[in-house]
Order: sequence, then C-alpha cells, then structure tokens
Amino acid sequence: MLREPVTSIVDANSGGMSGNTGRYEKRLSDLSGLYENAAAHAQLTQKLGDPVVYAVEDFRPGDHAGDLIYGITRMSPGRIGDEFFLTRGHIHAKADRPEIYYGQKGKGLMQLESPEGETRIVEIGPQSICYVPPYWIHRSINVGDEDLVMLFAYPSDSGQDYGIIEASNGMRHRVKTDGNGGWILVENRDYRPRSSDTVAALMKRYA
Amino acid sequence: MLREPVTSIVDANSGGMSGNTGRYEKRLSDLSGLYENAAAHAQLTQKLGDPVVYAVEDFRPGDHAGDLIYGITRMSPGRIGDEFFLTRGHIHAKADRPEIYYGQKGKGLMQLESPEGETRIVEIGPQSICYVPPYWIHRSINVGDEDLVMLFAYPSDSGQDYGIIEASNGMRHRVKTDGNGGWILVENRDYRPRSSDTVAALMKRYA
Repeated sequence: MLREPVTSIVDANSGGMSGNTGRYEKRLSDLSGLYENAAAHAQLTQKLGDPVVYAVEDFRPGDHAGDLIYGITRMSPGRIGDEFFLTRGHIHAKADRPEIYYGQKGKGLMQLESPEGETRIVEIGPQSICYVPPYWIHRSINVGDEDLVMLFAYPSDSGQDYGIIEASNGMRHRVKTDGNGGWILVENRDYRPRSSDTVAALMKRYA
Repeated sequence: MLREPVTSIVDANSGGMSGNTGRYEKRLSDLSGLYENAAAHAQLTQKLGDPVVYAVEDFRPGDHAGDLIYGITRMSPGRIGDEFFLTRGHIHAKADRPEIYYGQKGKGLMQLESPEGETRIVEIGPQSICYVPPYWIHRSINVGDEDLVMLFAYPSDSGQDYGIIEASNGMRHRVKTDGNGGWILVENRDYRPRSSDTVAALMKRYA
C-alpha cells in the first residue's frame, strides 16, 4: 500500500517535531546504574522529583528492511557528581546499521565504542552532523548548560540492544567535567572487555 | 572492517558540507527536455553561459544494504518561462527505498508522483523535513528568490532511476508561477500514464 508523504516541522528550541508517530521520555531514575557515584544519583533523583532527562519524538514508518526512522531528541543539562546527563547508549540489534545525528541546539558529545573497546568522541552542536558507522556502540552526552537538541535518522530495521553496555559494566571510558567548563575522558574501572567470541558475533553483516 | 566516525559541518548558507566523499554539479544544459518552453531554455542557457543550477556534496559509505548516504544540495533560484529551476527527478532503483529532506535555507517544493500518477506537493523551508515514502518519484523545485539548501539522507542501496520521468514525457503536473509570487499546478499535456504492468513492476518489495 502506498503511503502519503510526511512533513515534520522541527522546533529546535523545544526539541519537538510535528508529523511524529510516537514519543517517549526517560527520567533520571531510568539512568540508574550508569554513574560512578550511585549515591549522588539517588540523592539528586529524589531531590529533583525524578525529572525527565530526555525526550524523543520520532516518525516510524514500520520496521521492515530498507525504510528509515527519523526523529528529534531533547536532553536536559545536568550533572551527577562529575559526570553529565547522558543516554543509556546502545548498539543496533542489527549491528551493521549506522545512524546519523544532526545538532540543532546546545553542546553535546557522541561517545562511541567499538566492540573491541576503542573509544571515539565526536562533538555535536548546531550545524554539525555525526555519522555513527556500523558496529559502534553510541551514547549522547549533554556537556553544555542548555538543552541539547539533535535530529537523528537510522534504518528502520536497526533495532536497539541496550544490554551490551550492561554486560561490560558500562562503556570503557567515563566522560567527566574537567572542572573548567570542559570535559575529560577517564577509564571506567569496572569495565569488562568483550571476549573475542562476543566481538566476532557482533561483527556480522545483515541482509 | 570497522570504519571511523565522521563529522560533517554544514554550511547552510553556501550549501556545503565537510566530511563528504564526493561532489557533483548539474548545469542548466543538463535540464534540457524538462521545460515546456524549450526555446526559452536554450536561450537562457546560452545567455547565462550554462551556469551551475544545483550542486550536491554527499557522504557515501558504500552501496551495500543497510547503510545510509547523506548530503547537502544547493539549488539556484531561476525561471525558464513560467517554470522554476528544478532537479531532473527520480524514483529509487529499489523503488521501496524512502528519502528524507531537511530544509536549511530558501523556499522549495518537493513534487512527488506515485507510479499511478497521483501528485503531491510538500513545501520545504528551514526547519521542515519532508519524508518521501517508498515508491514515489520525486523532484525538488526552487520556488523562492534565493538559494534552496537542503540536507538529505537515504538508504545506501537505493540507487536512482532517472529514466522513469523521461518514459512518461515528464511528470504529470508542471509547477508554474502564478504571476503573484506563488506557484500553481498545471497538467502536463505531453504526459503518458504508466501501464498497469509498469506500475506493478515498480511496486516490488526489495530485501
């Protein structure tokens, strides 16, 4: 069946988008287990009344192969100890599917990790696109003082695997404040590298 | 082989993008055959010295299934008789592949045509996304007085079939100036509808 064209008007300020088929939110409590300072996370969650940390509005035509999902995400600024508000992070269930992000507002980072544990950081702001290649775990981080708003697009049959980060006790590096308005990378002491079997299983090419 | 993340800085004013793997241009002479007033096209081409009408910079990771191509396009404003500067238009060679456009500057239209000859028009400007669903022929048109700049993304194995418009003697409608700064749709008198066999062959689902 032929589908109708869609127009989405982007509100880069509020992080909204018309024409979307869905919307979801993540609250501060949904980020439990991600931060080194778990006590600070619990305290801030209670103190702030478990606020929404990020919201996503997307257009999903379906999950068949060959189509595209696109949407917009807005993430609040904030810190837990010396770490920033961030997304849980994921690799695509079909790990060879890429993703594109396009900054609209604010100052963010894309933290990427290869199956073998290499880290890459891409800075994202207005007018910058980040292409996340196939096979990279990725997470976005708001390192600024205002909302981080980004558009994204990815193949509709990508799927998300959030368990990969849990299985390695987090990503290999933590992004922390440098105490001077910037950020630094610090080794995550709890990180468990993936076995070569796990890596080989991830590096599959899907149809 | 694992590929490195890519950052593309978008210049919405000039229609450029860093991190691109390629670039191509179309000149006014490349648009021959598209306009009702062929003499006006030939005259203007000669008078202006065959200028570049639109340019595309894109990032192509390859053409395997499951990946994404993205890029930016800049189209000059201009008219041939009472028609606007426009792209040749295409359907994807794998016709079930969609495309996303995101306006950055100027005032444009996406003219869409279904295999059976239905027309849809989507207005595109800064902050508006146009989702071109699977199976729609599409062409962009600069109906404004300045450059039209758009970002785009589509599945890397989509391919382009430009012959489909030639085979039907153009798209079913022409977009013309209304003489008052706007535009109107006019039936293309030369249009040859596609046969039901041709339509059925186009409506295939690819892997």
